[in-house]
Order: sequence, then structure tokens, then C-alpha cells
Amino acid sequence: MTQPERRYVITFGCPDRTGIVARISQFLADAGGWIVEAAYHTDQDTGWFFTRQEVLADSLPFGIDALRTQFAEVAAELGGDWTVTDTGERRRAVLLVSREGHCLYDLLGRVASGELDVDIRAVIGNHLDLASITQAHGIPFHHVPFPKDDKEAAFEKVRSLVAEHEPHAIVLARFMQILPSSLCQEWAGRALNIHHSFLPSFIGAKPYHQAHVRGVKLVGATCHYVTADLDAGPIVEQDVIRVGHADGVPDMVRKGRDIEKVVLARGLRWHLENRVLVHGNKTVVF
Amino acid sequence: MTQPERRYVITFGCPDRTGIVARISQFLADAGGWIVEAAYHTDQDTGWFFTRQEVLADSLPFGIDALRTQFAEVAAELGGDWTVTDTGERRRAVLLVSREGHCLYDLLGRVASGELDVDIRAVIGNHLDLASITQAHGIPFHHVPFPKDDKEAAFEKVRSLVAEHEPHAIVLARFMQILPSSLCQEWAGRALNIHHSFLPSFIGAKPYHQAHVRGVKLVGATCHYVTADLDAGPIVEQDVIRVGHADGVPDMVRKGRDIEKVVLARGLRWHLENRVLVHGNKTVVF
Amino acid sequence: MTQPERRYVITFGCPDRTGIVARISQFLADAGGWIVEAAYHTDQDTGWFFTRQEVLADSLPFGIDALRTQFAEVAAELGGDWTVTDTGERRRAVLLVSREGHCLYDLLGRVASGELDVDIRAVIGNHLDLASITQAHGIPFHHVPFPKDDKEAAFEKVRSLVAEHEPHAIVLARFMQILPSSLCQEWAGRALNIHHSFLPSFIGAKPYHQAHVRGVKLVGATCHYVTADLDAGPIVEQDVIRVGHADGVPDMVRKGRDIEKVVLARGLRWHLENRVLVHGNKTVVF
Amino acid sequence: MTQPERRYVITFGCPDRTGIVARISQFLADAGGWIVEAAYHTDQDTGWFFTRQEVLADSLPFGIDALRTQFAEVAAELGGDWTVTDTGERRRAVLLVSREGHCLYDLLGRVASGELDVDIRAVIGNHLDLASITQAHGIPFHHVPFPKDDKEAAFEKVRSLVAEHEPHAIVLARFMQILPSSLCQEWAGRALNIHHSFLPSFIGAKPYHQAHVRGVKLVGATCHYVTADLDAGPIVEQDVIRVGHADGVPDMVRKGRDIEKVVLARGLRWHLENRVLVHGNKTVVF
Repeated sequence: MTQPERRYVITFGCPDRTGIVARISQFLADAGGWIVEAAYHTDQDTGWFFTRQEVLADSLPFGIDALRTQFAEVAAELGGDWTVTDTGERRRAVLLVSREGHCLYDLLGRVASGELDVDIRAVIGNHLDLASITQAHGIPFHHVPFPKDDKEAAFEKVRSLVAEHEPHAIVLARFMQILPSSLCQEWAGRALNIHHSFLPSFIGAKPYHQAHVRGVKLVGATCHYVTADLDAGPIVEQDVIRVGHADGVPDMVRKGRDIEKVVLARGLRWHLENRVLVHGNKTVVF
Repeated sequence: MTQPERRYVITFGCPDRTGIVARISQFLADAGGWIVEAAYHTDQDTGWFFTRQEVLADSLPFGIDALRTQFAEVAAELGGDWTVTDTGERRRAVLLVSREGHCLYDLLGRVASGELDVDIRAVIGNHLDLASITQAHGIPFHHVPFPKDDKEAAFEKVRSLVAEHEPHAIVLARFMQILPSSLCQEWAGRALNIHHSFLPSFIGAKPYHQAHVRGVKLVGATCHYVTADLDAGPIVEQDVIRVGHADGVPDMVRKGRDIEKVVLARGLRWHLENRVLVHGNKTVVF
Repeated sequence: MTQPERRYVITFGCPDRTGIVARISQFLADAGGWIVEAAYHTDQDTGWFFTRQEVLADSLPFGIDALRTQFAEVAAELGGDWTVTDTGERRRAVLLVSREGHCLYDLLGRVASGELDVDIRAVIGNHLDLASITQAHGIPFHHVPFPKDDKEAAFEKVRSLVAEHEPHAIVLARFMQILPSSLCQEWAGRALNIHHSFLPSFIGAKPYHQAHVRGVKLVGATCHYVTADLDAGPIVEQDVIRVGHADGVPDMVRKGRDIEKVVLARGLRWHLENRVLVHGNKTVVF
Repeated sequence: MTQPERRYVITFGCPDRTGIVARISQFLADAGGWIVEAAYHTDQDTGWFFTRQEVLADSLPFGIDALRTQFAEVAAELGGDWTVTDTGERRRAVLLVSREGHCLYDLLGRVASGELDVDIRAVIGNHLDLASITQAHGIPFHHVPFPKDDKEAAFEKVRSLVAEHEPHAIVLARFMQILPSSLCQEWAGRALNIHHSFLPSFIGAKPYHQAHVRGVKLVGATCHYVTADLDAGPIVEQDVIRVGHADGVPDMVRKGRDIEKVVLARGLRWHLENRVLVHGNKTVVF
């Protein structure tokens, strides 16, 4: 697919009041900024205002540093949080995997076919099963075993391997290990997990087995930010697929995988495009 | 729509072994029975075999009583549970409602337009809000108030009103009162509830509020048989609809209603057509 | 449900350029307008910019007439088309029906249960089948027969009955008569039809039969604006439902109805809330 | 996943009459056959009866050749068409591709992760783009260029490459070349195509562009058997995904790909498991 033109992406949030949109859009208009996409939302419960704007880089007479400096003033005036990013800077990701490969295969295929534009800097696995497919895509694979009696050292190894790449996203692509809270903290807002159930149903281990026991008629998957609270972080995306009485656990696993793959891929795309604004334990997805 | 030809519906379940299908189908073939629909399933966990068959009434040389007598022998030989029903006997239902009318309006519309063939013998409400629409459809409405300090008497009143009609289905169409376990017992396998969440998520009161707090990206509804365990009975049907950050609780309520209506209508249809076989806390839906 | 606060709804479209959002939002900010919902879109093919904004009526120091006068100047300056409507003025609709009642029952139920806020001024039917349910809801029913040899007079009767009410929406709720192009013209942008297929598949008569012959695995419904070109007007909403080899035409009809109802109800809601902006033969739905 | 036990799969079709199920099931019961899955259907339009049965191989006292010989007699007696296949014989497939890799990546990932059990004997491409990923999976890639002025020779090359492997399935995984009718004939009932629209809408070239022009609110994909009539063969599976006014053609392409992948994978699985019975231009999918 043809690359879209380079854009600056602004996200901003502050307590709602009149004149916010006017202030931001006037600032951009004064600089000649051509807005190609704009979205607004106010959360009625908390009275918090959110916006995300995409501006053509070439329409501005200055670069991203000047944009940041100038927008910081606007944001300070309005009393809010902001980010300004450049689609010209390729996003970096590190993937954490275990033995189940469907999410990894899916993401590698999306990148290879030019559908998902991200620089996968490394794949880290606690087993070797997925090393060769990773390497076939020209991506380094790091094997970090997780012995039961020394997970701490393993997590430290993972932490430092990840840190090298300063990734925009750390993707737990069916990693199956529960992160220590210190890592949740360090990766806050960057670590995405795919959980194989429609949360908050079936938290924890073996969700398809739980679903089978309960006799549900749909199984699902949830992409969420990792927090110290297991499977309870802000939800980015969810979807479901129909199952019936004829579906045993292996059928649920198989059908569910198709949902896990698309839910994770959508969540990751939105995260990389700065479309996901976290507020408390919820997300706004523009 | 044109009425389909009269049929006898056989359901049967027993421990799986070879020869069951042969035995049943040979019995029907010997009598000249024309099978218009047949379904089979074996539950791998419990080794239980299930079947449902529809036979054209006119293809048999005898009536339903003889069919029952003869099939009872086959069933005894195979050691299983069975039912034989006649689509020529119109199914009866009693509906329990409160103030929210969307499920009632929907069911009345389906019956009036000839889409759902059921004789709604009575609607019982703990409020008067839905009396006039019920009566406009020519159906008796019984008002049974539920005072906080004397629910027992109210439930006894409901019990006796329902019992008069010997209904095949008692439908809790957003009834909002928790049945005492004695009623759950008396109505076992006949009482269908519609819960406004994708169970087992958000059991109990105000599920849309719970869903909003958790920030889920889909809301759902569940039609299940009522048991003494709140919202934990065998699930007949479920479905979901997408919501987003812009949807407040009232939007979730509105979107969810469209799912509640179809999920309840599907579950009720299947129940009335003897398509739902309960086994433990799960259902086989043929 | 509780009524939301009174709002003024502004829609606007013009050729895209920088500064449009700034101009409009500055105008609103200067007047103290509190924006509760705002959406923007630019069509890349035609370079056309669209926006829809909801402003709290009480936040402005003037009424809707002054808002219109003043906004007209802004719009003239930007060179675009606009509407300003008041949610305090209840929307009026006239429904056209034939014999199939499922869409009518559904809409009446939504209005009666307070879910869809619209004043259904009249229902016009070319058969009498749906007269009594309409009247049970306190709505006048007009019977206008359509004799094969004098449809022109019948349409003239319908035209004048509709004109009396100056409705915001004329809903063809499975009306089954093809409108003459003069009526399409007179009702342009106000007449919504529900077609019982996923257009552009199966245009014209008996779409479920066509679908059955082709052996599709999903059937659908389409809500679109009526134009002189049969089933080819701008699409507002579509949805589908799964069917299988066991579904005959009557099953497809039954399953499809559930989709027709929700697709029409959604399309009508969006139309009445001024969320649908037509551009050429396509719609922007905010 | 653990391999299920070896099974013989019987499919059978004949004009409907009483006693068919009894005859077949008695035959199996007499031989001690343990039926693990059974499905029946009668097409009401044509009066044709269909069944598919899975029998545990170890439950029979004889092998597949004897089963075929004996079942042939039963089938002859009933006057129908039949197949008997052995899940112990691994299914073979050849894939035809062009430049777009998403379907190929998806199928290779499913095979590599053990989810889809098929022996991909070869991938044939008219471009070289997908050679390396194919080879990374240990599968031979054949490059057969399709010069505009000599497609006939190219097709002959493809034909002979395919013929070598006697594949159960020939998968056109976005192959983009229209097969000559001689090949359609030779591969009848074995060649599956994925078309990137919800057929019968948008037949032929550039369906996403056609969809964008029409302004549909859903895009879809269709897996069908290839026949000499372009995009008009029997449909095996279809699905759709929601799009909106903000989705340009590239977005439709991207979203549609997720549907193409799962629709093709489902269709191929069902075909390989002998679940798809073709009758006229329609399919029964058990």
C-alpha cells in the first residue's frame, strides 16, 4: 500500500470547559496546519475532555520541536496533558512469546505484507519453539528460560533486553507469564496483553476451559494494557465468536484464536497510531 | 407465513454406545415415519448421547399416544430419557414483567405478526405500566404488586396464576424480582430469564452500569433457564453488540435492549420447539 | 430514560481548507457555547469537509433564530451548506406500511417504551391489516388502497396526507410500492426505506428468494434514502445475519426480519438526530 | 493440539424417502461402528437427502477398502452418491498466489502452529514476492510468470505442476488470474477461491473500489468453488466486517483482509474434512 503523507499526531486531555476546541484549532490554523483527522470526546462521568488531531507535517512552517514547544504553551494555558508524535518516526516494538505461535505468526505476516508498519526489534521467548519463524523474518530472537525457582532473574533479563530498544509497544503475544509489578510500572502504558476471554469473564488460567464448563455460546478475546492487577487493566479492544454444544475445548481454542489475532492486531495498531487515550481504568479509542 | 405440516417431535438422551441411531431410526422406518429433521450430538466429557427428530404426523399409521407407548419401549431398551410432543398442540406461555417494556413489546409483535406461534395466556406485572399494551393485544394482564415486606404472598399469587395455565414456558421478560427457590423448583426447565449482560460477566443488579465502569467494548445479553442460583442457570442463547467510549450508560441500555430482545425471542422459540436439551448446567440446542 | 438537556445541532459541509474548525469553534466559543458532541470528516475523493456539533442551548446567550442568523454568516464566509436544528422541537414522522407488520410493531414499541423520541403523526397503509395496532397506540391510521389501474391517484392521496404533517421523516416500513419519481423528488432527503437485502445484492422483488437461490451464507438489510433509482439511494445503515443450508426461504424471512427492524430503527434514529449527511450518493453518519 | 482418533468419513446423498437413516445406521451398527459425529439434511426444493457420518476406524472389524465395498452396496440400494475417506490419510493441497501475501501468510501460520492439518505440497506464484516466506516454511515455491500474450502456456505449466501432487484442494489464495474453463473442469470440486466481496455483490475486479463507490457499510469476503462462471460457483463460506465513512479504499482493503483470511481458512478446513457437499450451485456444510 502507498505510504500516507507524514503527519504530526497531537493528543490532549483536560477538564472540559468552553473554548478548548477553539483554542487548539486556532493555534493550528494560525500556523497554517492542515488537519486531516480530528476527534473529540468528553467523558460525562469525570468531565474530562479528550482530543486527537492529525496535521500534515508539510503544512506547518516549522518542525516537530517547534510544534512541541508552541503546543506546550497552549496545553499549559488549558491545563492538560499532551503528546505530539511524528508518523515519520517508525514505531518500535518488542514481542514476548511462549510456545503458542498464532499471534506471533499473525503479527509477522501483517508486518511482512506491509499492512502493519512497525519495526519489530526483537522477539523474546521463554521457549525456543518460535525462534526459527522469527529469524526467517529477519528479526532477532532471544531465548530467556523461566525456571520455576528463578523467575526474578529471568524477568530482569527480559527487562534489560526490552530496555535496549526503547520500544513504543511491548506486546505480550500469549506470553503466559505474570509480570512482576515493577515491570508493570516500568512498562506502564506501553505493554499490551491479549487475554483469551471476553473480560471480565474468565480471568486467569485456562479461560477456554472455564468457558466450556459454564456452557457459554460465544467465546472472546480482550486486548488490554498490562497493570499490576491481573487481567484488569484498561481494555483497548474486544471481540467474540460463536460456539455451540458441538464445540469441545479444542474447538473453542481454535475458534478463539482467530479472535485473539485480530483483537491484538487492532489494539496494537491503534496503540502505535496514538489512538488510545487511557483515563483511569478506561480507554478512549479515536 | 404458511403453517408447516403437523409433526411429532422426539427428544432422547442416554449414555452413548453403538447402535442407538440404528435402533431409533429403524423403529421409525418400520412405522413408515418420514423424518423431516434430525440432529445428533454426543457430549465427550460425560459420554451422553442426545438426539432430536421431527417426524411428519401423517406419515405414521397411529397417533401420538401410540407413538409414546411404542417409543417408551425403545427408550427403556436403550436406557434413556425422552419426550414426544405434537406441533399440533399449540404451546402456552405466561409472561412476567415489571416496568421495562421492550421485551414484552417485542414478543407481542412477533406473535401478532404470526412469526412466533405461541398462545400467551397471561401477562403478570408487578406494576401497571404494561397493562394497556397487553390488553390491546387481547391478552389478560394481572397486576400483582410486590410490597417489600410481603413478597412471599405476591409470589404465591404469581405461582397460582401461572399454574392455572399449565404453560410450556414461563418467561421472565425483565421481571426484576428474584424468584424464591421453591418457584425455581416448580418451574424447573420451563422458566426462561433474559439477563442484560454476557454472563458470567456482570451477574446481579445493574449490569450495564457494571459494564460501563469496567470499560468493556461490547455489551451482551443471556437467555438462560432459571435456577435457584442467581443468573447461573443453563445458558440457552447469548449475543453481544459493540459499544465505545462515547456510549454512556443510557446508550448501553438502549443498544443492549436490541440484543436482549432477539436473544430472548430466539431462546423462547427454541424452547417452545423442544430444541433445547438440558444436561447438567449446560444446554444442547438442536 | 431521562431526557438529555436541550441542544442545538449544527451540521455543515464545504470544500476542505485550513481554518474551518477554528472559524466555527471560535464562533461558538465567543458566544460561550458549550459543545457536548463534535465530529469532523473530510472525504478524500471529493475534498469535502463535514462537521456536526451539538451545543447546549442554555449555554448560548441567544435563541435558535439568532444562532441561525449568525451561523449563516460564518457559513457564507466559508462557502458551505448548513442546518441548525433544535432538539427541543420534537421530530415528526409519517409511516407507510403494507401488510407485513414487523417493522411497524418494532417502531411503535420503541416509541411507546420511550426509547425512540419521535411523534408518529400518522400511519398510512394500502391494506387494513395494521390499522388496529396503530390505533391501539393512539395514532391515526389512513387506509389508501392501491388499485392496479389507478396507483397515481393513490399516490396523490398519500402525498397530500403526508404533506399535512410536514414530517422530518417519511418511513417506508416495508411499504412494497415503488414511489413515482415526483414523490421521490418531493420527499428527497426525508424518505427512508428498508430493503430486505444487503444492497447492492438482490435489488428489487423477493430478495430472500434471490438469496436462497444463490446459496449465500448471510442475509442482510439496508436502510437507505429513497431516490428515483430503485434501491440505489444513499445507504444509511446495513447489517447481516448468518443463515445456513437448513434455512429455507421462510427461515431466511424470519431471521432477516430481526435485521430489518434494527437497521431501520438505527437509520431512523440517526436521521432524526441529524447525524446523517448526504453527499452525492453516499452518507456520512456522525 | 492432540490429534483426534482416526476416523472414516462417509458422505452420502440421494432422493429423500423413508428408511434411509435406518438403512445406513443399521449397516454401521451391524459392523459395530462407533459414530462420533452425524449430520442429516433434506433440501426441500429438490427433495434431496444428504448425510455425513464420522465413524471411529478402530471400532470396525475391517479396513477402509472393505468399508467402501460394503457401503457401495448400501448406496446402490438407496440409489445415491457417496464418498468414504480416511482421516488417517493426510490431505494434500497446492496453493496459487500472486503478490498479495495475507492469505498465504495466514495459511502457513495455521499449518505451522498445528491448527490446520494439511500437507501443502507446493505454492505456485506468478510473481516471486512470496517465494522466500514459502521456502522458510520448507515448502517448494514454483515461479510461473503469466505474460499477457501467452497465458495459455502458463496455465498449462500450472496444471501440470498441480497434477503431480494429486491434491485434495487447489487454493486460489488471491491468485488474481481467471482460470480457463478447461482447468475449472479438471479441478471441479477441488478448487477453492477467495473473493474479496460479499458475493453476489461486486463481482470481478477491484471489489473494494466498487464497494467504496456504492457507499456500503459492511465489506465482506466469499470462499467458493471455482467454476467456469466468474465468481458464481457454489458458496462455501462468507463473512463481513463493518466499515464507515472514514474508511477509504486502503482501509477497506485492510479490514477486508482479516475477513478474507478467516473465510478462506474456514472454507478450506471444511473442504478438507469433507464437510462440504455440493448440490447444483449450492453447498451443504455439515
